[in-house]
Amino acid sequence: MAQFDSTTDPKLKAFFDIPADSHFPIQNLPFGIFRPGAKRSARVGVAIGDYVLDLSVLDNHGFFDGPNLRGQDVFDERYLNEFMDLGKEARIEARQVISRVLSGEDDRLKNDADLRKRALIPMSEAVMELPVQIGDYTDFYSSREHATNVGTMFRGKDNALQPNWLHIPVGYHGRSSSVVVSGTDLHRPMGQTKADDADKPSFGPSRLVDFELEMGFFVSGGNDLGSTLSMKDVEDHIWGLALVNDWSARDIQKWEYVPLGPFLAKNFGTSISPWIVTPEALKPFRAEGPKQTNPEVLDYLKPERPDLTYDINLEVMLRGENMDKPHKICTSNFKYLYWSMAQQLVHHSITGCNMRTGDLLASGTISGPTEDSYGSMLELSWRGSKPLKFPNGEERKFLQDGDSVILTGWAQGDGYRVGFGNCEGKVLPVREG
Amino acid sequence: MAQFDSTTDPKLKAFFDIPADSHFPIQNLPFGIFRPGAKRSARVGVAIGDYVLDLSVLDNHGFFDGPNLRGQDVFDERYLNEFMDLGKEARIEARQVISRVLSGEDDRLKNDADLRKRALIPMSEAVMELPVQIGDYTDFYSSREHATNVGTMFRGKDNALQPNWLHIPVGYHGRSSSVVVSGTDLHRPMGQTKADDADKPSFGPSRLVDFELEMGFFVSGGNDLGSTLSMKDVEDHIWGLALVNDWSARDIQKWEYVPLGPFLAKNFGTSISPWIVTPEALKPFRAEGPKQTNPEVLDYLKPERPDLTYDINLEVMLRGENMDKPHKICTSNFKYLYWSMAQQLVHHSITGCNMRTGDLLASGTISGPTEDSYGSMLELSWRGSKPLKFPNGEERKFLQDGDSVILTGWAQGDGYRVGFGNCEGKVLPVREG
Repeated sequence: MAQFDSTTDPKLKAFFDIPADSHFPIQNLPFGIFRPGAKRSARVGVAIGDYVLDLSVLDNHGFFDGPNLRGQDVFDERYLNEFMDLGKEARIEARQVISRVLSGEDDRLKNDADLRKRALIPMSEAVMELPVQIGDYTDFYSSREHATNVGTMFRGKDNALQPNWLHIPVGYHGRSSSVVVSGTDLHRPMGQTKADDADKPSFGPSRLVDFELEMGFFVSGGNDLGSTLSMKDVEDHIWGLALVNDWSARDIQKWEYVPLGPFLAKNFGTSISPWIVTPEALKPFRAEGPKQTNPEVLDYLKPERPDLTYDINLEVMLRGENMDKPHKICTSNFKYLYWSMAQQLVHHSITGCNMRTGDLLASGTISGPTEDSYGSMLELSWRGSKPLKFPNGEERKFLQDGDSVILTGWAQGDGYRVGFGNCEGKVLPVREG
Repeated sequence: MAQFDSTTDPKLKAFFDIPADSHFPIQNLPFGIFRPGAKRSARVGVAIGDYVLDLSVLDNHGFFDGPNLRGQDVFDERYLNEFMDLGKEARIEARQVISRVLSGEDDRLKNDADLRKRALIPMSEAVMELPVQIGDYTDFYSSREHATNVGTMFRGKDNALQPNWLHIPVGYHGRSSSVVVSGTDLHRPMGQTKADDADKPSFGPSRLVDFELEMGFFVSGGNDLGSTLSMKDVEDHIWGLALVNDWSARDIQKWEYVPLGPFLAKNFGTSISPWIVTPEALKPFRAEGPKQTNPEVLDYLKPERPDLTYDINLEVMLRGENMDKPHKICTSNFKYLYWSMAQQLVHHSITGCNMRTGDLLASGTISGPTEDSYGSMLELSWRGSKPLKFPNGEERKFLQDGDSVILTGWAQGDGYRVGFGNCEGKVLPVREG
């Protein structure tokens, strides 16, 4: 692969018009799984402007004839896993083919109206599906601001950060079965909780349902059981990034989490964006994270280069049933995270734990330094003590039934945006029966 | 299905001799995945005496012609999941066919030397494989004695049990990728630890590698996201039981586990026995667990019947490299567990978390009331303060490189045993490079 990656050239344009504020210009080319209509089968697609490019159609026409993709037949699949299993070279090769086709440099699609009709599906008609068959899902806790806020609320300012936090990318194993694609609404969970002044617990609907603004990445390749990944080449195993909403029930969490950590408070649902944005598309937005000098991290976590994160703008919007539009409640950035994805993945493997293609590693809540950058209702309303006020007069301490939460994120280029689209879900009432 | 289950009749005998202390008499019929030789493909088998019955061979000969299994083609598979997905009726139907064939009541196998040769593989030639493709693995903490012992060591006798413990089957999400079948040796993990008197953490091999004597069960069927399982019918979703060794690195655990629970301390490997014993085989050994009256459990966890556990004898043996045979270090029983499998599974689903065929739910360390019944080195050596002494003069506080740990378990019937075989693994030195 040449040093200069033509697929991210800011001057590159698709052969059809794409608005400047679209999340999906020709420089992005995120991968996802979609059905061209409710009754059609699922296959691999790429978001481009207001369309989804059907890669299975291109593959049937022999467009993917490079050494890594020819004959692999990985695009007529219900999950991205087979494609991901081919590694970074196949991903880069696919991007280059798609970029030439969509720019018109390869004019076979541009000049064939029938093929265009079959290969370019209006996004409004596409049904997005969970893009990856997730083996294991792990959630980290990598925002210093978030860990400090939560620690301050529960233990006071002086003991906010636990002693291990600046040495370890703290994380926990999550539940993979309940990871759902954006657009899937979730029922308010039932659970066991105990009020501070009650002498015994009770069972009922969670009263403190929350969102968590996170991002996550999918692993490709990985390591055999007993072997480890190192900071030197770990980035080759980061296949792509997505938005993640780690829905949480704070009252269930509070009662259950000592000593083995969050369990039912988190497993009723985790939403991810349908589009997976690649390291190639994000390369122009590489950024340095917070300094890790006080204390220094141990050698196995020492970065090989300073710019291990990305400058990705993040926003959260809330829309209640009686609101006429979504209202922004949080503005944050991926680069605020203290621990990088590379460090999370190396740490995860360091005992010899085998990482597999399709594993999802999420960041934990991404909070920034200011009060409007906190990535959860728990922090935004400071445990309910400062309710959020909305233009129609409503207030929120935590989420109410009917509330939709919309995460979005994008990197801002010169005249274009590399975006993630939305990660959206609504809190439905407790399910009857 | 008739009320009387002929497959567990104590008088039933196979058409060939099986010793009385075999774990695999005709009353047991546990399912597993095996290869008839190192180069043959994996398929479904049943343990019978010193043989493995190849169900794919029987299926090819049309033996499984009942309404639940005819044409399903679930035995020529690398995992049990497809068979499990057919639910309890298919499992019972398979048992009845196999029981008739092995008793000789159906004499087609008994009278066909060629078929016997192809269908009955000496266990010594069979290569056992991980029997189930595990979606999510959850580990509970359901032994009151274990939780009390650990709590006493770390917080003192008066605060041993956390306030939630008697109300909630406390558990946490584990790592499914590193669940391995018995016979898989595991490397001592590297990790980050901090000595009490050190001012910063260090990185190196874990010095406190431990086993945990556990059992687990596999789910079949399950529930859709947002719906729940209830105590009324939850047992239909318990497909079968296995032995589980939840290998643990106590020094890594101590440094990492606050506030999100065990993570790397547990994910370098979890061993399970190759044979999955069914609820039908264990039905004669149903037993009552500890009384749950002080406090009463909440209604959603109230048992529909008192005998929700099984009387299963459990033992742990340790064999160091310089020992001439394994030595018993623990004698426990599955019925000691405070929380039943039914309660674990209902609690897990109660937020609407979707349980799937192939999920593994383990019990947590099964310790009993006496010092020789503790299910971990941590408890047996009381945090290293009472080293275990072996006949060759060696001592152990925790596991050393080269130590093999062998779990075994069986229910004792009248003249026969329904056993689980062994769940064995060796601690290898830290892997180089």
